[in-house]
Amino acid sequence: MKNSINDLFLTFLQDMYYAERQILKALPKMAKAAQNEELKQGLMQHREETQHQVERLQQVFEQIGKRARGQTCEALNGIVEEGEEVIEEFEAGPVRDAGILANAQAVEHYEMARYGTMIAWAKACGMNDAATLLEETLAEEKRADQLLTQIAGKAVNKGALRAA
Amino acid sequence: MKNSINDLFLTFLQDMYYAERQILKALPKMAKAAQNEELKQGLMQHREETQHQVERLQQVFEQIGKRARGQTCEALNGIVEEGEEVIEEFEAGPVRDAGILANAQAVEHYEMARYGTMIAWAKACGMNDAATLLEETLAEEKRADQLLTQIAGKAVNKGALRAA
Repeated sequence: MKNSINDLFLTFLQDMYYAERQILKALPKMAKAAQNEELKQGLMQHREETQHQVERLQQVFEQIGKRARGQTCEALNGIVEEGEEVIEEFEAGPVRDAGILANAQAVEHYEMARYGTMIAWAKACGMNDAATLLEETLAEEKRADQLLTQIAGKAVNKGALRAA
Repeated sequence: MKNSINDLFLTFLQDMYYAERQILKALPKMAKAAQNEELKQGLMQHREETQHQVERLQQVFEQIGKRARGQTCEALNGIVEEGEEVIEEFEAGPVRDAGILANAQAVEHYEMARYGTMIAWAKACGMNDAATLLEETLAEEKRADQLLTQIAGKAVNKGALRAA
């Protein structure tokens, strides 16, 4: 059985490498299913950022001398699956948009939890370069979440209410 | 197809009702697999809170005139599954504790995202009593997350590093 913090860090790194690449695929589908223009743009802008986040993870793999490899992340798969269910069950419009936005925020929160943990471990192990890269990503995830909250407040939730 | 915010709220309510009851089952397993006393206690204390959170969700179902019923939450199942993998793969001790703590925080973050969304929808729909109940729960989730961060900082991560 494993018992080192390096093994645990690698497990989480592989988990996030899988997760970020699934998010790259999921975001355009969510943007396509959304009607609100700001939401569509916000999701596609975050896809650009996600591309850089994948590259940062590749750099962290390099820094620790491991091949970049993903490991199925059941949590992220579950969040994406719930997002797909909302798109299937709700007709296009402001209520579906509110659901898409909520699921995008669930993705962001999962990532914030994971990166927060990985940064703490990287710092504890003296992997300062890795910590710096992961902190850049964490800051992007937080900003993406805040942007989604703004879009929800000013447009999506109001539209969903009018549609009720 | 569905198109009302009430349907969307109900979907998320059923999702969280399932999730909270799964968390009730998962927390004692996580506490049992942990070695650090503070972590064990923190997890069991949060189990007590979770029991009240389940009851609050039942009250919200009552308020909207629906039978309390869960709907499989793939996201939460995925997070719990990842937590079980860490317990299976890592031997008992400080590194496994760090993994258990990280997975507990992933659960908290998922819940914070969901409750944040549901509170916004409840307020937008004028369901003020529901919003108040969900806000009590959200505050507990935030406190649980902060407590876990404290435990990580002072004991678990340091222990994991010494074990490296």
